Amino acid sequence: MTFATHQIRLAARPSGLPTPEVWDHTESEIEDPAEGTFVVAVRFVSLDPAMRGWMNEGRSYVPPVQIGEVMRAFAGGEVVATAHPDFAVGDLVTGLFGVQTYAVSDGRGVQKLAPDADLPTNLAVLGMPGMTAYFGLLDIGQPVEGQTVLVSGAAGAVGATVGQIAKLKGCRAVGVAGGPEKCRILTEDFGFDAAIDYKGDDLGVALKEKCPDRVDVYFDNVGGEVLDAALGRLARGARIVICGAVSQYNESSMRGPANYMALLVRRARMEGFVVFDYASRYADAAREMGGWMAEGKLKSVEDVVDGIETFPETLLKLFRGENMGKLCLRVAEA
Amino acid sequence: MTFATHQIRLAARPSGLPTPEVWDHTESEIEDPAEGTFVVAVRFVSLDPAMRGWMNEGRSYVPPVQIGEVMRAFAGGEVVATAHPDFAVGDLVTGLFGVQTYAVSDGRGVQKLAPDADLPTNLAVLGMPGMTAYFGLLDIGQPVEGQTVLVSGAAGAVGATVGQIAKLKGCRAVGVAGGPEKCRILTEDFGFDAAIDYKGDDLGVALKEKCPDRVDVYFDNVGGEVLDAALGRLARGARIVICGAVSQYNESSMRGPANYMALLVRRARMEGFVVFDYASRYADAAREMGGWMAEGKLKSVEDVVDGIETFPETLLKLFRGENMGKLCLRVAEA
Repeated sequence: MTFATHQIRLAARPSGLPTPEVWDHTESEIEDPAEGTFVVAVRFVSLDPAMRGWMNEGRSYVPPVQIGEVMRAFAGGEVVATAHPDFAVGDLVTGLFGVQTYAVSDGRGVQKLAPDADLPTNLAVLGMPGMTAYFGLLDIGQPVEGQTVLVSGAAGAVGATVGQIAKLKGCRAVGVAGGPEKCRILTEDFGFDAAIDYKGDDLGVALKEKCPDRVDVYFDNVGGEVLDAALGRLARGARIVICGAVSQYNESSMRGPANYMALLVRRARMEGFVVFDYASRYADAAREMGGWMAEGKLKSVEDVVDGIETFPETLLKLFRGENMGKLCLRVAEA
Repeated sequence: MTFATHQIRLAARPSGLPTPEVWDHTESEIEDPAEGTFVVAVRFVSLDPAMRGWMNEGRSYVPPVQIGEVMRAFAGGEVVATAHPDFAVGDLVTGLFGVQTYAVSDGRGVQKLAPDADLPTNLAVLGMPGMTAYFGLLDIGQPVEGQTVLVSGAAGAVGATVGQIAKLKGCRAVGVAGGPEKCRILTEDFGFDAAIDYKGDDLGVALKEKCPDRVDVYFDNVGGEVLDAALGRLARGARIVICGAVSQYNESSMRGPANYMALLVRRARMEGFVVFDYASRYADAAREMGGWMAEGKLKSVEDVVDGIETFPETLLKLFRGENMGKLCLRVAEA
């Protein structure tokens, strides 16, 4: 049996926003899997801001995607052929399957899901964004009951989860997002105490109003002026969690936080992390978050777009701030 | 008895470097001290980069010096008149006596020294710069034996002490200073393993060569391009201690560290501190550092300039990087 797979490959390194020209669409055939491997029919592809970094030359926390390589992506799908002892046909799995309709895997880094699992949720709250929110907030941010947690990119998959976990831990949760509609959803649907519209509000004024006791934990997904504004509103002993800098990924030069001396004045710290380091604890975190979901205390939200061929255009939604929750592509079944 | 005191007061807030016009020289008479106070004849005034921040409007970790006020300064001197039960004529003391030849004190924040104490040393390694180096490096930087400690402003009072304590703790100590002469002194006289001349060397190349195992602790006194270069050379799990940013204090706008996403890639943190928070532990630290000095393992170096009236000009040496060790003014005895 063979599988005709449609693949999206990196054709050139972008400067600035990744335009359609940086992608190649290719078709190829996947044969029956070799011993120790299996074939996954990809159903959902996760689109993440981190992808932009993976497209740059030079080693970061992972090697860059090479020119001509299938674009790296988390994805979820179903095993359709197997020569691997641990994976059976019909198993639902998530892993780094790439932007393609069929993938071959040797099982490394692959999670096997329950038969009734929801794939998009397992790419969102129960996937990397959820793990990122969980470990970044709890291990690096170390929020204490009654403290104020501010999160940027709050309408994204990571940010919305950070705010909800902050509430679960008894904190005041304040989100920064773009536009009044996202802000409304954060407070009305996700239980944030307040939201700040970075496109419409004066950040300094809004932070003063929405964070009257200052900011104990700032979970930063965006960098740029929001990071500088948050630095200006830190409480003594505050922790800034550096998770991403989506406002800067497509800029020709990074903007550093000019207000960083607030770390001294406020006896505060700024710390980065990479979620992959917590792999040995994913299962425990997923169990706890699954419990919160079952109790109705944690919501996953996915922004699903149809068609793998829309990848180049859909990816840009992330950088234009047009998604609400986890941005995924749904792959049409063959 | 009265004491004719010469005072240097802040006349205007500087923009950029504090030019002579921002200072007023005044003379006044100090009468016999009131109950609970004493008069100090100031012998040495400490000149510190932090003074530049104290001259700016707006609250930082301490209130700003007000226009017309005597300039805040650490100083050391001798009690010459007293109506305070704990201080006798002849006592040697250090405290925030300001830039003036005689000061009145109620004893708050004043350290009484041994009769044979060396005043400049008590403004340097055994004073605020030494405390800053000790608590910043050990509490915030947390160096581990065998790790690499990089310090900027290494020829200054804080930096030279940081490097020496790093060596005492079994670390590789690398200093960044301006000019080959300072670099020579750091390695030959202060036991640094290596020194980098930020004025002459290519920082990236030099850091690669002098920190072959990357940088585990970076103690930053300067900010600007040295901070960015250090971020580019961090080891995994590194700690950056934010102590000062002397390269930026006189700039119209602060330059933020554009490389701050290295904190994520390297799972590193950047943390600020204020030495005043450690006041309850100063005595213990001074005892330990005094022991190291007695064993010849820790050197104090002071750069002494004569005449309180030279204060406006001498202060600029700090911002031009012209001092080696603790910059002090010696006050002529009346």
